[in-house]
Amino acid sequence: MNMLVDGEWRTDAHELTDDDGSFQRGETTFRNEIRDDPDARFQPEAGRYHLYVSAACPWAHRTLVVRALTGLEDAISVSVVDPYRAEGGWQFTPEKEACTPDHVHDADYLRELYVRADPDATCRVTVPVLWDTEEDTIVNNESEEIIRMLDTEFDEIATRDVDLYPEGYREDVDRIIDEIYEPINNGVYRAGFATKQEPYDEAVDDLFGALDHWDEVLGEQRYLAGDRLTEADVCLFTTLVRFDNVYHTHFMCNVQYVREYENLWPYLRDLYQTPGVAETVNMAHIKEHYYTTHPDVNPHGIVARGPDLAFDAPHDRDDLPGEPPAALSPAGANADD
Amino acid sequence: MNMLVDGEWRTDAHELTDDDGSFQRGETTFRNEIRDDPDARFQPEAGRYHLYVSAACPWAHRTLVVRALTGLEDAISVSVVDPYRAEGGWQFTPEKEACTPDHVHDADYLRELYVRADPDATCRVTVPVLWDTEEDTIVNNESEEIIRMLDTEFDEIATRDVDLYPEGYREDVDRIIDEIYEPINNGVYRAGFATKQEPYDEAVDDLFGALDHWDEVLGEQRYLAGDRLTEADVCLFTTLVRFDNVYHTHFMCNVQYVREYENLWPYLRDLYQTPGVAETVNMAHIKEHYYTTHPDVNPHGIVARGPDLAFDAPHDRDDLPGEPPAALSPAGANADD
Repeated sequence: MNMLVDGEWRTDAHELTDDDGSFQRGETTFRNEIRDDPDARFQPEAGRYHLYVSAACPWAHRTLVVRALTGLEDAISVSVVDPYRAEGGWQFTPEKEACTPDHVHDADYLRELYVRADPDATCRVTVPVLWDTEEDTIVNNESEEIIRMLDTEFDEIATRDVDLYPEGYREDVDRIIDEIYEPINNGVYRAGFATKQEPYDEAVDDLFGALDHWDEVLGEQRYLAGDRLTEADVCLFTTLVRFDNVYHTHFMCNVQYVREYENLWPYLRDLYQTPGVAETVNMAHIKEHYYTTHPDVNPHGIVARGPDLAFDAPHDRDDLPGEPPAALSPAGANADD
Repeated sequence: MNMLVDGEWRTDAHELTDDDGSFQRGETTFRNEIRDDPDARFQPEAGRYHLYVSAACPWAHRTLVVRALTGLEDAISVSVVDPYRAEGGWQFTPEKEACTPDHVHDADYLRELYVRADPDATCRVTVPVLWDTEEDTIVNNESEEIIRMLDTEFDEIATRDVDLYPEGYREDVDRIIDEIYEPINNGVYRAGFATKQEPYDEAVDDLFGALDHWDEVLGEQRYLAGDRLTEADVCLFTTLVRFDNVYHTHFMCNVQYVREYENLWPYLRDLYQTPGVAETVNMAHIKEHYYTTHPDVNPHGIVARGPDLAFDAPHDRDDLPGEPPAALSPAGANADD
């Protein structure tokens, strides 16, 4: 594991696994807010903010999905790191397929941006990073908080009238995001990075218990919070879309494929087919990242073939209570063409 | 990798992977024959021969299946090694569930039997081993040859009238055993032990190409060679029964589960439900062996949960051309009760 310690890059720093063999995710460290409020330090403005992402990372991927759904592509630019995370951490390798330079500073490594934001930074260097080009610093690197800001604070800038945190649903959305985090979003990592049998077994039990539960819920309603597409769906989506090709095998979450679930699989296809979403999914980056970046899990770095998933197959979920936001319905999407 | 070199146990000997990253299986070295012929050195006799097996090993498992199908349980005794193969190679740990002592010599390690058979042995120490208690030596350690002997040379000793190498099918049986070996039986190892991407990719292509082919064949006929259960089915069975829980994840053969195949999965259940076969399957030994014995593949030795397979679910293959040998049909099996 590598991280910044007092602004210095250290390759010997801080294992993420406890003595009992269980994976412990570190806290994210930059937690400022963009608020649509004249008194706020960071206010929503087109062209002011920049996203640093890995297309492989499920946390970063959330920000790309919300940016696409709400229509912030022109307002918020993006730099994409190399899916392979080597000794130096996330890196910019623009020569590589679907990677970009650091569009803001032309840095070589993402860690340079962390040090620029805080010369004494002591933290892991993670994506996503929401960067403010005006103050030349990091606003926030916590995915849940970034998607909330993009979703709720940019209404006047976003080109689509899509609200993923609607009034009347907010309590449920917050609750569900919280409920799915530990067993599912983080659960796949707890399974894959466990170094002992017991924490692995616990993680697998939690994970499939939660998947079974939500599979049942999704038999009755189109989305996690009911009849509205919300941030909760985005949070589950970026884990589910990686599941069968990566978590299932690489992290040994192999009780069953998501594609074997009666409702989760059509639900995943439904989300994938929601206008704007498919373009955010880069399965090549996803597979390369996981299989090559964790020699402790996959020593030879061979990329597993994985199932060929028919994300475009009909999902047949239109009859369930709920529909995509009008601005994202096929008619709405076509209207944009 | 460990092996005997001039009768000495060496832990630094002979990697099994070529410079190009492809797995190369070593030759088996004891290739004598039991023949039902008064001039033969090794003749079929009840109580004379002994099998050394690991219940985890697909090659050894073949001999247990043929022994069970033909009814040689009383005539040929068995010693079962520890599923975990440590530095010292296969070991006898009778205190462990479903393991036995070495019933013949009370050895601690299987390699002792190899040295007893040949003090200058230079070879890998593998299961199965067919041991002759009369000459106190190894007859054979090649699974295909051992099952052929058990099947064809013990007719007067076997308690069941089961012929797995019937006249009129022999050419097909030999051809099919040969055809499935490289892409399937050995193919899973070629995928799992590849240390570079290209040989892995080739192995996976070969493997799933062959599985697709046989899945199609098995839509039209009950068994690999047509309407008769043969040695070819035994050879495929011991790979298929391990597939979804081990090869799929541990060896990254993850294009799909066997249980997702339209015909291979009912075929696997059909074989599993053939009287005598289920008792030869020890899934706990199978999982422990693979996940704990290959630190180069699975560094932390965590045993993956794997799918829960309904081997006992109805297979609905009775309508296809073919049926089990009469001595193994439910009526025949019940008659034994």
